[in-house]
Amino acid sequence: MPTFVMRMNHMQPKSILLILNTLSELEEHLNSLTNERFFVLCDSNTWRECFPRIASGFSNRQCHIHIIPPGEIHKQADTLWDILRNMALEGLQKSDLVVNLGGGTISDIGGLASALYQRGLPYINLPTTLLAMADAAHGGKTAIDFMGIKNLVGTFWFPQQTIIFPEFLRTLPQRELKAGYVEVLKQALLAGKRAWAQASTIGPEQITQNPQIICRAAELKMKIVKQDPTDRGIRQILNLGHTLGHAIEAWSLTHPLGPMLHGEAVALGMMAELRLSALYAGLDEDFAQQASRVFSRFIHSPFPTISDIDQIQNFMRYDKKNRNASIRFSLLAKPGKAYIGVSIAEKKIRNVLEEILSGIHNP
Amino acid sequence: MPTFVMRMNHMQPKSILLILNTLSELEEHLNSLTNERFFVLCDSNTWRECFPRIASGFSNRQCHIHIIPPGEIHKQADTLWDILRNMALEGLQKSDLVVNLGGGTISDIGGLASALYQRGLPYINLPTTLLAMADAAHGGKTAIDFMGIKNLVGTFWFPQQTIIFPEFLRTLPQRELKAGYVEVLKQALLAGKRAWAQASTIGPEQITQNPQIICRAAELKMKIVKQDPTDRGIRQILNLGHTLGHAIEAWSLTHPLGPMLHGEAVALGMMAELRLSALYAGLDEDFAQQASRVFSRFIHSPFPTISDIDQIQNFMRYDKKNRNASIRFSLLAKPGKAYIGVSIAEKKIRNVLEEILSGIHNP
Repeated sequence: MPTFVMRMNHMQPKSILLILNTLSELEEHLNSLTNERFFVLCDSNTWRECFPRIASGFSNRQCHIHIIPPGEIHKQADTLWDILRNMALEGLQKSDLVVNLGGGTISDIGGLASALYQRGLPYINLPTTLLAMADAAHGGKTAIDFMGIKNLVGTFWFPQQTIIFPEFLRTLPQRELKAGYVEVLKQALLAGKRAWAQASTIGPEQITQNPQIICRAAELKMKIVKQDPTDRGIRQILNLGHTLGHAIEAWSLTHPLGPMLHGEAVALGMMAELRLSALYAGLDEDFAQQASRVFSRFIHSPFPTISDIDQIQNFMRYDKKNRNASIRFSLLAKPGKAYIGVSIAEKKIRNVLEEILSGIHNP
Repeated sequence: MPTFVMRMNHMQPKSILLILNTLSELEEHLNSLTNERFFVLCDSNTWRECFPRIASGFSNRQCHIHIIPPGEIHKQADTLWDILRNMALEGLQKSDLVVNLGGGTISDIGGLASALYQRGLPYINLPTTLLAMADAAHGGKTAIDFMGIKNLVGTFWFPQQTIIFPEFLRTLPQRELKAGYVEVLKQALLAGKRAWAQASTIGPEQITQNPQIICRAAELKMKIVKQDPTDRGIRQILNLGHTLGHAIEAWSLTHPLGPMLHGEAVALGMMAELRLSALYAGLDEDFAQQASRVFSRFIHSPFPTISDIDQIQNFMRYDKKNRNASIRFSLLAKPGKAYIGVSIAEKKIRNVLEEILSGIHNP
């Protein structure tokens, strides 16, 4: 006998995407924010390479800087509690603002700390990597890794703003820029033919001169997230290339030449999932091959061999998207159209992995 | 130059309140849930006293029981990570259900673990104390204490259902039942004259025979939460009696005779805030005195003395509701009508505390 049913539209986040091309634009914007204090989260790389480039934007306000060691390996509980402890010692209030200055690791863990402190502080993301600008800094997924599982502990908490300052791309090593471009390409495939043609022509070398490409990737992501913020349906199309990509990335963590960068693993995942898309989602075979060749320019050793497939398939089974242990994919039907939750038998996945991996090792 | 603005109505929780008066009703209801597995969180008291009374409702499904030590002192990070670790070891999935069987500590920490694992598992609350049935188990505030500050780390995550099984009240010591009734009385004051007349007549002795009183308190809370789930405005009226109540509770933690139960501290807080309401919110003075006498039946030693007021005021300054260090209250204008964010000078608070405390010590 239900006596009372409550349906609520609660939390209506307003997430703003800004592209600020010059330091004076960025300064002016930061100065216009009305928050009493900033709590700036950096890693030691972004503190050294990025903060000095924009320090003037932080000069007219009380700022507390919290620096964590770089790398996903520190995206875990101890680091999170250090941040929360520091927030408490500073007596941070809801009238203050957390500023995440860094790549996906920083926005993931800084977003989670913001979500949890006093049940939610406002925060903004200032992504410093191409990957974060195009993808990770948007969409409100916050997390840390736990018990060896990526992003097992987290929450949805949306940044008030994400500010893209393309200047930061100049601080990136070539390899990271290239790996980040993989997400731009994936987003372009999901956006449609024109976006794909443009993104696959321009390439990471010219991205600094063409920041609108990053913008478009970010906008597409936000449009999809808006329809399905908590990842129960349509948002899963963003997983294209990632079911295998994540498993390959996990495999590479213990490899003597590893780990692969996220984008490098996803490039390989894209090649395999484009093939799966051609086989099981009606994607045009010629287009799949052509797109796969584009992604092949972004892979990077260590490459798995056929004898690693068992281990990769094991990692896939642990992927939290797989309800009831069946392996599900987001697959491309054509540029601009994708299916979610396509269940594929493990044998068929193995066949495609064998095909792709022998192609890489015997081009 | 904002290029893209996203406004979202995300997460539309459906929170159901159920009153189930008999074991067979409860069994039938639990059996009807379609989740594959239950992850049941208890403390050692509710595991011993409450679980056996309803064990038959869990017999036809795979259940994992996780038992934590009792008491708010364990509502902290280590306990949270133990729960999350166990969830991971069990391979919990979104198709499973977390069941919080206990008082406010259990629903707070179990709700937080549910919110964080895989960015959100569904959970239900099965409150076992009067306090939790009438108040704590509703409203989606989850938390742990951190750095000595109550509920500093948490999030908003709504239970799918809260099930009130009044039978559990028979397991409670008289002192806890009495303290829990204070929240019933506070809710009744906020609901209006009739609710107050009823709640102040019935009393905790007859609550088991009158579960509709609990129900009404819970419904009122959910109605207010629905209007303001994230506590930015109207929901703060629920803080009536709690600005001073929390500070008195914090004071009692280090007292050799302490700690006071939450409801006992709130009863004292209500007496003081009813007086403040008469002085600064237009509450009828006779009514304030009459209501204050009702709450005085629920206070319990240790009582603070006038020399403790400094320390109580210190705790108040740390209360996270106080923006910019001014002390703000929710005050009653009349039964059914309250103001939020009423700022009162510390001197005036001290005067009222002195008056109330001398009244208690020299009745």
